[in-house]
Amino acid sequence: MKGTVVALSGGVGGAKLALGLSRVVDPSQLVVVANTGDDFVHLGLAVSPDVDTLVYTLAGLVDPERGWGRRDESWHFMDALERLGGDTWFRLGDADLAMHVERTRRLAAGERLTAVTADFARQLGVAARVLPMSDDPVRTRLQTGEGWMDFQEYFVRRRCEPRVHAVDYAGAGVAAPAPGLLEALRDPGLAAIVICPSNPLLSIGPILAVPGIREAIASRRAPAVAVSPLIGGAAVKGPTAKMMRELGGDATASEVAHGYAGLIDALVADPADAGLAYPPGLRVHSAPALMNSIEDRERLARAALAAAEAAGRNGPG
Amino acid sequence: MKGTVVALSGGVGGAKLALGLSRVVDPSQLVVVANTGDDFVHLGLAVSPDVDTLVYTLAGLVDPERGWGRRDESWHFMDALERLGGDTWFRLGDADLAMHVERTRRLAAGERLTAVTADFARQLGVAARVLPMSDDPVRTRLQTGEGWMDFQEYFVRRRCEPRVHAVDYAGAGVAAPAPGLLEALRDPGLAAIVICPSNPLLSIGPILAVPGIREAIASRRAPAVAVSPLIGGAAVKGPTAKMMRELGGDATASEVAHGYAGLIDALVADPADAGLAYPPGLRVHSAPALMNSIEDRERLARAALAAAEAAGRNGPG
Repeated sequence: MKGTVVALSGGVGGAKLALGLSRVVDPSQLVVVANTGDDFVHLGLAVSPDVDTLVYTLAGLVDPERGWGRRDESWHFMDALERLGGDTWFRLGDADLAMHVERTRRLAAGERLTAVTADFARQLGVAARVLPMSDDPVRTRLQTGEGWMDFQEYFVRRRCEPRVHAVDYAGAGVAAPAPGLLEALRDPGLAAIVICPSNPLLSIGPILAVPGIREAIASRRAPAVAVSPLIGGAAVKGPTAKMMRELGGDATASEVAHGYAGLIDALVADPADAGLAYPPGLRVHSAPALMNSIEDRERLARAALAAAEAAGRNGPG
Repeated sequence: MKGTVVALSGGVGGAKLALGLSRVVDPSQLVVVANTGDDFVHLGLAVSPDVDTLVYTLAGLVDPERGWGRRDESWHFMDALERLGGDTWFRLGDADLAMHVERTRRLAAGERLTAVTADFARQLGVAARVLPMSDDPVRTRLQTGEGWMDFQEYFVRRRCEPRVHAVDYAGAGVAAPAPGLLEALRDPGLAAIVICPSNPLLSIGPILAVPGIREAIASRRAPAVAVSPLIGGAAVKGPTAKMMRELGGDATASEVAHGYAGLIDALVADPADAGLAYPPGLRVHSAPALMNSIEDRERLARAALAAAEAAGRNGPG
C-alpha cells in the first residue's frame, strides 16, 4: 500500500495490530494515535499506560504473556515499596519505572508528552510514529453503582467489577489534538485510517472526544476501517463486552460498527461474526481476529488495509 | 550505660559506628542525627543519601561492600534509563528507588522529612531513632578551582577531584533543627553525645551549622566524644584528608579535635595517632578505629562511650 496510515489505538489488543501494521507497511509511514485517557499520576509519577504499551510493543520489548509492560521485567522496586508501606495496587516494574521517572522529570521541565514520547520511541528503535492523542490531560472516568471512579481505580484496583452506568472523558472538551495529529489525518498522502481492535468506549472513545479528531475522520478523503475487538460476542481481553451490555447495547461486532457510524467505510470482523446485521452500506470483511502469533498480527493488518483499499474513496493510487 | 545517647553522623563511616552504638546500648535510647547537606533532587526525586545509609545500615540492609545502598541490589532501572537517554551519573538501585519515590510523594503531600524518615525506619525494623538534622533544605556547596559546585556534582560526578577552597552550607542559616533534636540534646537523661567518624567539613559541619545545634552541644551537661575519621593522616574512605589539606590545615586526628573545640570532652583516635599534639585538656583515648567487622563496630562504640563516661560532666549515673 502506498501512502501513510493513521491508526487509532488503546493498549494491548490495539498495539498488537499496530505492530502488524508496522510490519506490512513502511513503518516510517505509520502514525499510531494513542489513547491517553488512561493516563494518571501514581506515586507522583506520570504514567501513560497505552502510550507505553504501544512503544514497548513496537520496540519488541513488550512482555509477550501480559501484553503490557516489559519482557524479563523485575519487581524489586515494588517489593521494597511494599516493605515501606507504600501503595502497591498498581504494579510498576523496575525497568518500566525508567519511562515514568524520566517522563515525569521532562514534563515537569516543560516538555510536551508528544515530544517525550517521540524521543523515547526513537531511543528504543521504533520507526513508526507514536502520537499521544493530546498533550492536555484527558481522564476517563466511569459512573458506577458505587459512584464515579477514575479509570485505573475501576480497571486495575477493582478489576472492572463495578457495573458501569456512564463513561466520561474529563478534560476532553478543552483538550487540543497533539501537534501533527490533524495534519496526519488530512495529509493528501493518507492511504487509510485504521481503528484498532481496542475498547470503543475506553480506548477509542477518548481519542474521538478530543475536538477536531472525530470531525477530521468524518470528513476523511482516505478510507477508514475498524477491526472489531469482539469475537463471537466476547472480548479477547478486558471489559469491552461487559461494559457494552451494562450501557444497554449488544456486545457484538455489529454494535461496534454502529458506534463508529460515519467514521468507517469498512469493518473487519472474525468469521464467527459473519452473520450479524451490520449497518447498511458498510463493507464487512471476514478475517480471523485472534492475534496470538506475529503472523496473525501481520495477516490481520493486511486484511484491514485490504478492506480499506477495497472501500475506495480518494486515497492515493 | 544508662541514659540516652545522641550521635551525629554522615554516611558510611558514621553509620558503621551508629550500628555499633545501636548494638551496645538499648537502641530505643539512641538518637542518630543525620546530615542532610548532601540531599538533592535527582531525576525529580528527593534523595537523602546519609539518611538512607543510616537507615539501611541500622536495618541490616546496607550493601556490605559499598557501605551505602542496599545489599543484593539490582540495576534494571538504570539500564532502562540509560537506553532512554536519561542521566545516569548518579546510580539509583531498583529497591533503593522505592525510598526516593515514596519520600518524594510524601514530601509533596506535605509531610516532613523527619516523619517520613521515622516511618521508613520503623517499617524496616530500625529500633534507634534516625533524625534528619533539619526538615528545611540545607545544601552543601564547594568552592573549587572551577567555581562553586553542588555537593553531588563534586562528590559523585567529579569524584572529589577538584581542589576545594571553601565550603558553604546553603540554607543552614535559616534552617530549623528537626523536631525533637534540641530536646534530645537537652534531655536530662542524656548520657553522651558522640560525633561519629564522619567528614568534619562535609558531614558534621552541616549539622553544626543549623542554628541551635552547635549551641546546644556547647552548653551540654552530658559528656561529648568525637571519634576521629582519620587514621595516621588518611581517611578510611572519601576526601576528608585531601579537603583538610586543601583548606590549609593538617589532615590529622589532632586537627579534627581542634575543629571540634568547645564541643567535645574526649577524642577516640587510632593507636597510630597516639603521639600527636592534641588540644590541652582533651581526653584522648586510643582504640583501633578501622571498622571492618561488626565486632570492630561494637568495640569502637564501647570505646567511645567509655571515653565519654570517663570525661564525666553531669551525665546520669
